[in-house]
Amino acid sequence: MVKSDIEIAQASTMKVITEIAAKAGISADDIEQYGKYKAKITFDAIDKLQKNETGKLILVTAINPTPAGEGKSTVTIGLGDALNQLGHKTMIALREPSLGPVMGIKGGAAGGGYAQVLPMEDINLHFTGDLHAITTANNAISALLDNHIHQGNALNIDARRVIWKRVVDLNDRELRHIIAGLGSPINGVPREDGFDITVASEIMAVFCLATSIENLKERLAKIVVAYTYDRTPVTVGDLEIQGAITVLLKDALKPNLVQTIEGTPAFVHGGPFANIAHGCNSVLATTTALKAADFTVTEAGFGADLGGEKFLDIKTRELGKTPDAVVIVATVRALKMHGGVEKNGLDLENIAALQAGFANLNRHIDNIQSYGLPVVVAINEFVTDTAAEITALSELLTAKNVAFSLTQVWEKGGAGGLDLAEKIVTATEKKQDFHYLYDLESAIPEKIEAIVTKIYGGSSVSFSNKAKNQIAEFERNGWSNLPICMAKTQYSFSDNQKLLGAPEGFEIAIRELVPKLGAGFIVALTGDIMTMPGLPKKPAALNMDVDNAGNISGLF
Amino acid sequence: MVKSDIEIAQASTMKVITEIAAKAGISADDIEQYGKYKAKITFDAIDKLQKNETGKLILVTAINPTPAGEGKSTVTIGLGDALNQLGHKTMIALREPSLGPVMGIKGGAAGGGYAQVLPMEDINLHFTGDLHAITTANNAISALLDNHIHQGNALNIDARRVIWKRVVDLNDRELRHIIAGLGSPINGVPREDGFDITVASEIMAVFCLATSIENLKERLAKIVVAYTYDRTPVTVGDLEIQGAITVLLKDALKPNLVQTIEGTPAFVHGGPFANIAHGCNSVLATTTALKAADFTVTEAGFGADLGGEKFLDIKTRELGKTPDAVVIVATVRALKMHGGVEKNGLDLENIAALQAGFANLNRHIDNIQSYGLPVVVAINEFVTDTAAEITALSELLTAKNVAFSLTQVWEKGGAGGLDLAEKIVTATEKKQDFHYLYDLESAIPEKIEAIVTKIYGGSSVSFSNKAKNQIAEFERNGWSNLPICMAKTQYSFSDNQKLLGAPEGFEIAIRELVPKLGAGFIVALTGDIMTMPGLPKKPAALNMDVDNAGNISGLF
Repeated sequence: MVKSDIEIAQASTMKVITEIAAKAGISADDIEQYGKYKAKITFDAIDKLQKNETGKLILVTAINPTPAGEGKSTVTIGLGDALNQLGHKTMIALREPSLGPVMGIKGGAAGGGYAQVLPMEDINLHFTGDLHAITTANNAISALLDNHIHQGNALNIDARRVIWKRVVDLNDRELRHIIAGLGSPINGVPREDGFDITVASEIMAVFCLATSIENLKERLAKIVVAYTYDRTPVTVGDLEIQGAITVLLKDALKPNLVQTIEGTPAFVHGGPFANIAHGCNSVLATTTALKAADFTVTEAGFGADLGGEKFLDIKTRELGKTPDAVVIVATVRALKMHGGVEKNGLDLENIAALQAGFANLNRHIDNIQSYGLPVVVAINEFVTDTAAEITALSELLTAKNVAFSLTQVWEKGGAGGLDLAEKIVTATEKKQDFHYLYDLESAIPEKIEAIVTKIYGGSSVSFSNKAKNQIAEFERNGWSNLPICMAKTQYSFSDNQKLLGAPEGFEIAIRELVPKLGAGFIVALTGDIMTMPGLPKKPAALNMDVDNAGNISGLF
Repeated sequence: MVKSDIEIAQASTMKVITEIAAKAGISADDIEQYGKYKAKITFDAIDKLQKNETGKLILVTAINPTPAGEGKSTVTIGLGDALNQLGHKTMIALREPSLGPVMGIKGGAAGGGYAQVLPMEDINLHFTGDLHAITTANNAISALLDNHIHQGNALNIDARRVIWKRVVDLNDRELRHIIAGLGSPINGVPREDGFDITVASEIMAVFCLATSIENLKERLAKIVVAYTYDRTPVTVGDLEIQGAITVLLKDALKPNLVQTIEGTPAFVHGGPFANIAHGCNSVLATTTALKAADFTVTEAGFGADLGGEKFLDIKTRELGKTPDAVVIVATVRALKMHGGVEKNGLDLENIAALQAGFANLNRHIDNIQSYGLPVVVAINEFVTDTAAEITALSELLTAKNVAFSLTQVWEKGGAGGLDLAEKIVTATEKKQDFHYLYDLESAIPEKIEAIVTKIYGGSSVSFSNKAKNQIAEFERNGWSNLPICMAKTQYSFSDNQKLLGAPEGFEIAIRELVPKLGAGFIVALTGDIMTMPGLPKKPAALNMDVDNAGNISGLF
C-alpha cells in the first residue's frame, strides 16, 4: 500500500535543528529553537552571513495547475536534495502554508512523498506563529483605526472609505462581507467591512518584502488604510501606530529553519497566495539562503503566469538578484486536462489530449524565456503516466529545443531528481540577459496590458468605471510608478478558470485596483477573484484527529 | 529615577531555560524550547512527575481593584521568590496576558518591579502562541459551523440561534455586534453575529480545565454551538470536528515554563479573564507545579468575589485539590478609594477614608474564611503610603485577628516578601475544613443566589424573562447540575461598578445565561458586562516601538 505523506513524514528520523543550522554555517547561538526541529535564525546570524559570496538562485514555477496542484513544492524540495547529493551546498526557500486550505480542501503544503520538509505537522499547523503574528498585526490596525474614528475622528476619516480589511487565516466565506459597529454608540461606528484570508493581506506582502525591522516599520507606515472626507489618503503612519505593529511582527520576521527528509536545510518563511497576492516566500529568507549556500532553490506560487511573473517583476526588484535558471513543473495529467480531458478521465492514456494540452506548457516556456532566462522543464511523474505519454511529451519538448527531465522525487526523494539537478546546474552556467516585462515608469494601464498581452496571451484589457477613476486618482496621488500585482484565477491564463490550454483573443476585465503602498505595488482585481476562500462541502478538517500522546492523523 | 518594569526586566540576566527546568525536576529532553528562555514541557514530563508527592497550594486573590490593579501578580511572584529564599522548593503558576489589554490600557501583565516573570516582552506579546491557537480553534468552529449551514444544513441548524461567537485577542468594540454572510448566496447565510475577546471564549475555559488531550477532545465535543429549528442543542461533536479542533490545540495544551527575575520556575499558562470567564490559569499547569514543588503559588483574576470565588467553586473541582492557604492582596490606595476618595486624591494621606474603605477588605476576609480556609492579608506597599496609614490598617487587621504582612516585593523582589512567606507557611499548617459555597445539585437560581447573598453581600437576584426561559430550558436539557461562572464588573461587589466599599441591600440583575458544557459551567451575565472590551482614547499601542535590533520600548 502506498504510504500517505504524513505516514512517510512520521516514519522519518529528523536531525536536531542545531545540526541543520551548522550545515548552513549558522551556529547554535545564532538560532532560537522552537522545539528540537524548528528554529528561527537571529538577525545576528543574517549579519554574519553577509561576508559570504552570493550563491545561484533557481526559481521553480509551473504550468497552470489542476485543483490538486502539480507538485511544485515537491519538485522544489526534491531538486534541493538532489543538488546536495551531487555535492552542491544547497538551501531551499519555501512559503509557509496557510491554515485555511489545510483545514479546507488541500491538506498539507510541505511537499509530498519522500520530498517533504519536516516536521510536516507543525509546518502545516501553527509552525512558529508567523501567520498568527501577521493576522494579529493586521487586525490591530483595524481595531486602532476604528477606535480612532469612534474616539472623535481627529483625522477626519470617512468611515465609508476605509479600505483596510480585517483577516483570519481560515477559509471563512461568512466573513467576506459584513456590517460591523452595530447595536449602540458604544459599539463603534456602523460601517461595511469584510475579512480577507491572512495570506492575501498587505501585512503578509510587506512582511515578505521587508529587508530589516527598520524597513518593515517604514513600509508599515506607508500603508493606506482609508481616505478622509476630502479624499486624502490616511496611512498607518498617520495613526502613529507603525511602532506597535512592528513590535507585533519583529520575531515573525526572523526566517524559520527546518529540514527536508534528507536533511537539506530549508527556510520556510512568509506565505502569500499567488492568485490574490505576490506569492513568494520572504526576501529575508531568500537573501539569507543565497549567502548560506551555493545554490538556493525557491518556488513561486501557482503557475508561471501568476507566481512566476510576480517573482520576476516584483520580488526580484527587492531581492537585488534575478534567477540563474527557472524550472517549469508540468505533469502529464494536467496537460491532458489542458487538452480537454475531464477529471474522471485523467487516469487513462490519451496522447492526443496531451499533445493538445502542451500548448499551455509551451506558452509558459516562451514567457520565461522572454525574460532572458534559461528554462528546464521538470516532468513530475505520476503512477498513472504511461510510457507512450512520456515519449510523446519528450518529443514535443525536444522539438522545442528546451531542456527537460523526468523527475521521481515524490517516490525517491533527491535520487529521483539527479538528472534535473544536473541540467539545472548546466543551465545556470549560461550567460544571462535578464530584462523586466515592463518599465515601472509606464502608466498603470500599460503595465497591466503588458502582463495581459505578453504573458497571458490575451488581446485586451477592459477597466470598470471604478478602476478608471482609481487610475486617475492614483496618478494624482503619485502612485503610478509601482509594479502591478495581478489577482487572477490560477487555473487559466485568462480570468475565466474554465478556459484551459492556451486561450487566445480573450479580454481581461479589471474590476478594481487596490493601492498597497507598504508592499510597494498596486493590486489589480480581475473577474470575480475572491480574497477569502470558502470551505468545500466535506472539509479536510472532518478527517483530522489526534491521540492522547499528540500524534496527528488525517493531515494529508 | 524609578525604572520602569520593562527597563528592570531588560537589565536582568536570565538563566537558560534548561537550568530552570532542572530546578523543577524536568530534564532537558522533556522540554520543547521556544528560544533560550521559554519552553513548553512535554506530556512525558508531566507523566514522570506523577510519582512525586502533591505539594501545598497557595491561592493569591485580592480586594476589589482600582483600574490600575493592586499588584496581585506582583505579590504572587514575590511570594514565590520569598518562599524559595526561605528554602522551600516553590513554583509559581500564573495566567498568560491577553494582547487586548496590552495594546489598550494596561500595558504588560507579567508582574512588576523586581517581582516579574521573564522574558516579559515575549510573555506579553505572542509568547508561545497559546492564545493564537485558541483564537484559531474558536474561529475554525465558526467557519465549519457556518459552512455546514451554507452547504445544505443537514443538521437543521436555526441560523438565528447560533450561540457560538467568533473571537479576536484584541480590544475591538467594532466587532461586538455584526451582521455577516452579506452580499450574495456564495457568501454564506446572512445572520447576526459578534466577536468576543479570546480570553472570554469557552475554548479558553475548556483549555484551562482540561486534564489531557483526550479530556480536551471530550470537552470540545460537548460544546453547544447552536440550536436546531426544534430547539435541540447542536454540539461540536454533532459537527464531527472535535478531532480537528483538538489538533489545533494539542501543542498549546503543554504548560509554558519561564522564570522570575530571581530564577524561580514559573508556569504561565491559560489566561481567562475573571470578570467574564473563570479567571484562573490551567489545571494542567497547576497540577504539574504541585507535583514539581513543595509549594505552588497561584493567582485568581481580579477580586476574591470574582476570580477567588470561581477558583474555589469551579477550578478546585477539576483540580482535585483545594488551597492550603489564601493571600488577599490589599493596598492603602485602593482602600481609600473604597472609602470614597477620588482618583486625584489617592496620593494624599486620609486615615478616615482608609478606615471606611476597610469594609471591602473585611468582607473579602470573611468570605474566604467562610470556605474554611486560612487567610493572610498582604498589604502591597506603595511609595505614597504614609506610616500613619499603615498603622491604621494594621490596627484594623489586628482587631480582626487575621494574619497580615507588609510586602515590598515590587521594590525588593523576594526579600520584600519574606515575612509574608513565613506567615503563609504557618497558615498552611493549620487544620482545614474546606466546604463549597453551594451544592452542584441545587437549582440554578439557588446557586446564583448563594453567590450574590453570601459572597457579594447583596440582598436579592432578579432574572430577566430571557434568563427565566433559559433556566427552564437548561433544566429540560439536564444542565442544571453545573457550577455557575458569574460575569460581573470587577470593581464592585455589586453589578454597578460605582458602588465601592462593601455595599449592601443591592439586587443583582441576571440578563442572560450561557451554557458552557465543554467547560462544564453555566455563565450568568449580570448588568451590562461586556465580553469584548474597547480601546481607550490614547491606547498603549501609540507609545510602543522597536529598534532595528529588536529592542522594544513603551511596553510597561
